[in-house]
Amino acid sequence: AEIVVLPGDGIGPEVTAAAVSVLESVGRRYGHTFAFTHRLIGGAAIDAEGAPLSDATLDACRKADAILLGAVGGPKWSDGKIRPEQGLLKLRKALGLYANLRPVKTHPVALTASPIKSHLLTGVDMIVVRELTGGVYFGEKTRTDTTASDLCEYSVAEIERVVRRACQLARGRRKYVVSVDKANVLETSRLWRQVASRVAAEEFPDVRLEHQLVDSMAMHLIARPREYDVIVTENMFGDILTDEASMLAGSMGLLPSASLGEGTSGLYEPIHGSAPDIAGRGIANPCGTILSAAMLLRHSLGLEQEARCVEKAVAQAIDDGCLTADLAPQGAALDTLAMAKAVL
Amino acid sequence: AEIVVLPGDGIGPEVTAAAVSVLESVGRRYGHTFAFTHRLIGGAAIDAEGAPLSDATLDACRKADAILLGAVGGPKWSDGKIRPEQGLLKLRKALGLYANLRPVKTHPVALTASPIKSHLLTGVDMIVVRELTGGVYFGEKTRTDTTASDLCEYSVAEIERVVRRACQLARGRRKYVVSVDKANVLETSRLWRQVASRVAAEEFPDVRLEHQLVDSMAMHLIARPREYDVIVTENMFGDILTDEASMLAGSMGLLPSASLGEGTSGLYEPIHGSAPDIAGRGIANPCGTILSAAMLLRHSLGLEQEARCVEKAVAQAIDDGCLTADLAPQGAALDTLAMAKAVL
Ligand SMILES: CC(C)[C@H](C(=O)O)[C@@H](O)C(=O)O
Ligand SMILES: CC(C)[C@H](C(=O)O)[C@@H](O)C(=O)O
Repeated sequence: AEIVVLPGDGIGPEVTAAAVSVLESVGRRYGHTFAFTHRLIGGAAIDAEGAPLSDATLDACRKADAILLGAVGGPKWSDGKIRPEQGLLKLRKALGLYANLRPVKTHPVALTASPIKSHLLTGVDMIVVRELTGGVYFGEKTRTDTTASDLCEYSVAEIERVVRRACQLARGRRKYVVSVDKANVLETSRLWRQVASRVAAEEFPDVRLEHQLVDSMAMHLIARPREYDVIVTENMFGDILTDEASMLAGSMGLLPSASLGEGTSGLYEPIHGSAPDIAGRGIANPCGTILSAAMLLRHSLGLEQEARCVEKAVAQAIDDGCLTADLAPQGAALDTLAMAKAVL
Repeated sequence: AEIVVLPGDGIGPEVTAAAVSVLESVGRRYGHTFAFTHRLIGGAAIDAEGAPLSDATLDACRKADAILLGAVGGPKWSDGKIRPEQGLLKLRKALGLYANLRPVKTHPVALTASPIKSHLLTGVDMIVVRELTGGVYFGEKTRTDTTASDLCEYSVAEIERVVRRACQLARGRRKYVVSVDKANVLETSRLWRQVASRVAAEEFPDVRLEHQLVDSMAMHLIARPREYDVIVTENMFGDILTDEASMLAGSMGLLPSASLGEGTSGLYEPIHGSAPDIAGRGIANPCGTILSAAMLLRHSLGLEQEARCVEKAVAQAIDDGCLTADLAPQGAALDTLAMAKAVL
């Protein structure tokens, strides 16, 4: 299988290197050949190629069986006219990766590391399906000396496909989907709610669908996290709610994501950012990226057994007390390489 | 002083009645005369007057020294073309109430009632200043059979005045403001960040201003809540983050808000909604509304001592173990009236 690796900025190169070493080990053990092509994205690509996502890189991504990404962005590029994030947004859009799957499961380490009370955390197992190629991220933007605007748009077709994906996922789980919107204020949310209700009723009579307002959801997510199974929502709400939900796991550094479109290819990245404050020090938590590689094995390569093997190895390493600085008590932390070795 | 009372829907009438009785008692004790005029808003107004905010009510609100509101909305009206929320949005906009102050302080009861670990909660004392008359709430909306859109717009002047208000507040506190945006994606956020930086640098050199992305803020808010002093943000982000922050206090039912414009008048309402599930049962927590009445005394009537007296009475009642069902262990709960009596 052909895998494009986009390390990106900040801690991106460190965590993707760790995940690649895990994929290589899976290849050796199970007899698969993975061919890795490294390309630039984000700030690194702006510096070297003048654009955050070159045509050649986009082309390589289109042809690949899957893409593994680290993170993009950093203070160095935040005031420029061209921003690293544009590369990532362009990639998501160009490949039609409309469904961003963000599973949140609590490993026992969360009981100590999470700001949420332990008794609420045991058994948390949810997956947020965030719409990734629409909404206010991609609407027309305007700017004058005295005003700015961003347009939030959704079409019926955009809502249908992502809700469908969420309901399909729910079928393999607890058959319970919560759709999040702000239908008491937004027109896009009223359309979202209508379409979600219709898709669920017509195509998934076996799945229970409920609606929540995004403000309430921001409470319930941490007050009763165990109740949720699949959560589906639009791009911006998904961005906010998944970062919030990451606190259930104890550290963002643990959480993977998969961005999928119509084919089997996909983009896999940890949900954390480029963490410029710790970049280059080799201390970042590689688990989110390693678990993203596991999702890659599952969703793009159809290697379910291999995916589980990686997930088990990560859980086991953490069980054994192998923890990076984001999770370990002062002084007892492993660095990125040591953590990757523990998983290997 | 002339106070318009807008009970609204659901538990609104129950909690405003409790707050009015507290204001009456303050009037008697300190020798002030408060004249209360009751008017309809939201669903109740749709049913009785055909519109969620009649011209007569708006007019009464304009002339009043302050407005006390319960809550609006409910399933009964959620599918109609005219919605209860439109009344509230119209009122905020018509009176130019651009700064919504939402203080979050943790009373010791939060230590047991909050989903957040106790050691993170002690000493939490922040105030969120939410922009209330701009952004995606008020931008142009479109709808066709197959698409919908909402426009998010901000002007320099809109950002300036709310940031200024936040910085002024910070001067009376820890002189620390965090401005929240999504500047790595949104044009409105980039304008927001620029203007916030300029206002703070030019007019408030004594106040420390930092910027946070809204997704990161959704994490930090619960992971290190004690660090925050004043948080300023746009309308939609403020809606989501304040509901999330309410979990720090243990219950939404405890939290007040003040919506202020240029004059001294203002709109005071608890941050919770109309809670149709418990409406009419007389069990809602009136503290958020009573504390909103305290903010009314402070901000619109200039009665600081009286405001503190109400705040102390609420804290004392809770200290004494007087708790409504949202906070009390099963079976031991006071109803709305009993809670109001405990405060009185
Ligand atoms: C880097 C940024 C554009 C991105 C987003 O907002 O989508 C990130 O926060 C994420 O969640 O993947
Ligand atoms: C009722 C609704 C329109 C309102 C809002 O979103 O502003 C409410 O959630 C609030 O926070 O006051």
